[in-house]
Amino acid sequence: MKFLVRITISLKEGVLDPEASLIRRALENLGFQTEELKTARQFIVRFDADDELQARERAKTMCERLLANPVIQKYEIEVLG
Amino acid sequence: MKFLVRITISLKEGVLDPEASLIRRALENLGFQTEELKTARQFIVRFDADDELQARERAKTMCERLLANPVIQKYEIEVLG
Repeated sequence: MKFLVRITISLKEGVLDPEASLIRRALENLGFQTEELKTARQFIVRFDADDELQARERAKTMCERLLANPVIQKYEIEVLG
Repeated sequence: MKFLVRITISLKEGVLDPEASLIRRALENLGFQTEELKTARQFIVRFDADDELQARERAKTMCERLLANPVIQKYEIEVLG
């Protein structure tokens, strides 16, 4: 069975996000005051698995072995279909 | 009123995504066959607006003036609360 999975990788709470600070400042220069801004990477992946549980397990392994840096990043896995 | 908005920026259909190709190959080397992989950037922004319509309009302007490259990228705006 094919599964479509959305993986969202973001910084853990407390980790500095210098890109977000830069973007907030650039938005401010354009006249947009923001109270908070967070950045994240998203991967939409379609792959084969026996069932949803296995799809989630595979996505988790992909995160831990390649996509995320577990020291500073966390990940969220959603099975879209 | 404060609004929390999720902006997702991805490549338009047909635009080559060399990063996605590299990641697919790296996953394959780890033993994960994928049928499709797409990458996107996500920004979670909290800012002031009179109502949801104005929040959407502001997020759209942020995309067009700073966050997205309209030649090759598309954006999706979701008001989370």
